Amino acid sequence: MTLRGYSVPRTQTGRASLVPPPPWHYVGDFLVVDYWAEPDAAKSVLPDGLLPHPDAGRCAVVCADWQSCSEGGDEIVDPSRSHYKEFFIVVNALLDGEEVTTCPFIWVDQDFALARGWIQGFPKKLGEIWMTRTFGVESPADPGLAPGGRHGATCSARGRAMADLTVEIESGNDDEGPRHNAPPIVNVRHFPRLAAGRHDDPQVHELVRAVSRDRVMSKVASGSATLNLYPAPGEEHDILAPVKIGRGYRFTFGYTVDDLETVKEIR
Amino acid sequence: MTLRGYSVPRTQTGRASLVPPPPWHYVGDFLVVDYWAEPDAAKSVLPDGLLPHPDAGRCAVVCADWQSCSEGGDEIVDPSRSHYKEFFIVVNALLDGEEVTTCPFIWVDQDFALARGWIQGFPKKLGEIWMTRTFGVESPADPGLAPGGRHGATCSARGRAMADLTVEIESGNDDEGPRHNAPPIVNVRHFPRLAAGRHDDPQVHELVRAVSRDRVMSKVASGSATLNLYPAPGEEHDILAPVKIGRGYRFTFGYTVDDLETVKEIR
Amino acid sequence: MTLRGYSVPRTQTGRASLVPPPPWHYVGDFLVVDYWAEPDAAKSVLPDGLLPHPDAGRCAVVCADWQSCSEGGDEIVDPSRSHYKEFFIVVNALLDGEEVTTCPFIWVDQDFALARGWIQGFPKKLGEIWMTRTFGVESPADPGLAPGGRHGATCSARGRAMADLTVEIESGNDDEGPRHNAPPIVNVRHFPRLAAGRHDDPQVHELVRAVSRDRVMSKVASGSATLNLYPAPGEEHDILAPVKIGRGYRFTFGYTVDDLETVKEIR
Amino acid sequence: MTLRGYSVPRTQTGRASLVPPPPWHYVGDFLVVDYWAEPDAAKSVLPDGLLPHPDAGRCAVVCADWQSCSEGGDEIVDPSRSHYKEFFIVVNALLDGEEVTTCPFIWVDQDFALARGWIQGFPKKLGEIWMTRTFGVESPADPGLAPGGRHGATCSARGRAMADLTVEIESGNDDEGPRHNAPPIVNVRHFPRLAAGRHDDPQVHELVRAVSRDRVMSKVASGSATLNLYPAPGEEHDILAPVKIGRGYRFTFGYTVDDLETVKEIR
Repeated sequence: MTLRGYSVPRTQTGRASLVPPPPWHYVGDFLVVDYWAEPDAAKSVLPDGLLPHPDAGRCAVVCADWQSCSEGGDEIVDPSRSHYKEFFIVVNALLDGEEVTTCPFIWVDQDFALARGWIQGFPKKLGEIWMTRTFGVESPADPGLAPGGRHGATCSARGRAMADLTVEIESGNDDEGPRHNAPPIVNVRHFPRLAAGRHDDPQVHELVRAVSRDRVMSKVASGSATLNLYPAPGEEHDILAPVKIGRGYRFTFGYTVDDLETVKEIR
Repeated sequence: MTLRGYSVPRTQTGRASLVPPPPWHYVGDFLVVDYWAEPDAAKSVLPDGLLPHPDAGRCAVVCADWQSCSEGGDEIVDPSRSHYKEFFIVVNALLDGEEVTTCPFIWVDQDFALARGWIQGFPKKLGEIWMTRTFGVESPADPGLAPGGRHGATCSARGRAMADLTVEIESGNDDEGPRHNAPPIVNVRHFPRLAAGRHDDPQVHELVRAVSRDRVMSKVASGSATLNLYPAPGEEHDILAPVKIGRGYRFTFGYTVDDLETVKEIR
Repeated sequence: MTLRGYSVPRTQTGRASLVPPPPWHYVGDFLVVDYWAEPDAAKSVLPDGLLPHPDAGRCAVVCADWQSCSEGGDEIVDPSRSHYKEFFIVVNALLDGEEVTTCPFIWVDQDFALARGWIQGFPKKLGEIWMTRTFGVESPADPGLAPGGRHGATCSARGRAMADLTVEIESGNDDEGPRHNAPPIVNVRHFPRLAAGRHDDPQVHELVRAVSRDRVMSKVASGSATLNLYPAPGEEHDILAPVKIGRGYRFTFGYTVDDLETVKEIR
Repeated sequence: MTLRGYSVPRTQTGRASLVPPPPWHYVGDFLVVDYWAEPDAAKSVLPDGLLPHPDAGRCAVVCADWQSCSEGGDEIVDPSRSHYKEFFIVVNALLDGEEVTTCPFIWVDQDFALARGWIQGFPKKLGEIWMTRTFGVESPADPGLAPGGRHGATCSARGRAMADLTVEIESGNDDEGPRHNAPPIVNVRHFPRLAAGRHDDPQVHELVRAVSRDRVMSKVASGSATLNLYPAPGEEHDILAPVKIGRGYRFTFGYTVDDLETVKEIR
């Protein structure tokens, strides 16, 4: 191939690529709520190859406020190319008997993150995500990370509410962190065909397992949580609305991604 | 496959798919400027399989203000799912001796259009596109389509100017329409791998020719034009900046897409 | 005053002013739905000086897709400075026995239009507005203006749905146009104080009547309509939700504004 | 007055007001660069009542990533109503012999912050602002606050670059903080008239001095800086482009605002 570039657009230098080549370094603040959806609904979104988790309906929602960069880190000082926020749901499942999670619905607010997600198997759409921040000074405008601090997040897409959640901190230093988001994540990489007669025969359709390295994590604050998932035209995530809500978590997390494991092609 | 959906996210019903299944019906207003870039620059962005056009450096820029829908047309009354605007550059080339165009750079302002473009081989990024409109009434705020009417368009991405263009109408009914955008378009469908060691070995990388049907077109207004392409971090389209500017065109166009022809896989 | 500029920011030349000096020329496409709200709710939003309309609860919603410019029209070829969309509600009322309308709630998608609205007495917030378009060619993606054509509009703010409406055209040439939006509009210009102890004593608070000239209007298409107003945090427009829905209208309209009449100061 | 609300829209409850009533509590991260503009340019933007600073051309640019709320703090858990980012320039000046600053140009990314700024005398337009963050964990994606950490910010409006700046930290604990942004700020509250013949006779036009309380500030990191101000249609801030660049600063700051002092009406 004459032209270069990890993603499109491809040029002589590769510099215009929407997604820079791996490795991708990430750091971000997280709000997570462990919860349970209606078991049949949770089962209904599992891709071929995954079986329902024995703790039926086990799910989590994750809101992340990210800063990311590629090797060299030039995006860090040009933050329109490094910042993005995302909201997603994970459903717990079994892969060959092993506990895993899978992401059926996710929204993100930047194009490079949307494309990077498709490459990793995250079914990303664009949305608008907001999440409470903390600044480390005493202020009525800063909820802080001590007991009593109230944090919230919202996700919308096309001007419709997708979800909102809150966490009221009870412990500033939880021993464990979120349980429903802990297992490794397994998704489906999917790239459709447009050739007539082959619209139902995607060119890429494979179960993949995320691989990461150099993981860092802050202390975890945890507390009571609320969660709502809302219906909207052209959306189906609300089938996973909570029937029981667990604990909420707030922490900071970072890692590096430059690999992906193909579990199996699905046909 | 148990789950349904032309694109991700995939569910039992397929209704949450970011891109609805073909056919896709389009109608939109266009501003086009025929121009010539520096010949070596135009040549430098051609994918394998295309040779330079004998009229060296021949290019066009296209700004389109679209309304689109899938079968049934539900998106039409929910226009956040049918409206989008895009700006792109085409470079003229030869494919096995036949005149074609190819699109090295394109920006679009909606996620469904970005994903639909990747599926068709358009190397779309998100941008913000603005284009003068006309309303069919006499008003100082309406430039109209008669001689003297001045139309403009701009494209930006990440808060940086990518391009601007203007067309001052001299003829309200041109016989031909744009010449540099007339040949069939040939692009590259590209879907990268993330598996370690295979970042330079895309899973999908093939030359494709656009196929369409049921084309409709209004009268074409034409006139003198201006065009600027601007440099920006992480962008390279400005290597195709104009060395000579031809005529500008303003018209309305519609068509339907539900097919794509693979010319050859590139390795 | 040394510095110049109709609005802020003010400079030696006045060129940076967010709102250029009047006259302001406008042209746009409109979707309007005549309807009735709960009478007590309609009465509850009337400013001092207006009395309830005898046809209790009479209201309209208006969605407008505008192109506007100041004298000289430079914004027309730089459409990021001339395009905006807005959605608003008008309540019918009496001013000294004369039929008038007043606008209690309005959203607009550009800063210059928000500021221009405040100067005119429109209580504008930012929102995202979408409205079906028509292009004048035969296409499954173009509803057209003949009987059977279906048009829709939505308004959201901060990622929450504010309103949606549809109009299905039954007549392509209605004799009259919207009735509930026909009377002259009377609003309140309001500019608060921040000085301690005077937060409830606005510096500007006066009833004003809109003045316009050079009005142009297309034929009016009309038909059956739907309308929903939705609740959201920090919003109250949904108290004006419809109890009865009248006819919907689609037309193009233009005018020029460079005057405003103060009816009385309110204290 | 029957209707309530600090700003428009005004209702029976006041809950729909775009700007909630003071006090307003703020906390945010800051990047500041002390610099000097061309002295005549700096002088040219001073409102009546201010004289040039003896250190001719003394200016600063400020980028702030804010979280704010009103009394009760409900906006904190609904962060689309509490987050905003802004970029502004201050010019140093003298008011009756006292050192002050004044803000000739400012962009902000939320409507409530734009309106709140107009009330305080800040000449706000909408823009898009990005600023590097730090997360307190070791990561290649986190520049941190120790020597060597590189931070950047950009501001754009209408898809055009307004400004960019960088700070490379040399000291994680500077004794003083920014000097050019230290004096009290004096701005002009301005609200135009639209009545014919009075477009040059604003209804409100007064020099005001900001008042705040309960100020908190983190340690200040400082280092070398870069700064660019770019020209764009309808903008004039680039007349204040740097002729000499001082030091850059990064810190966190919070305060409360519920008062404003009128210095004098300008006629």
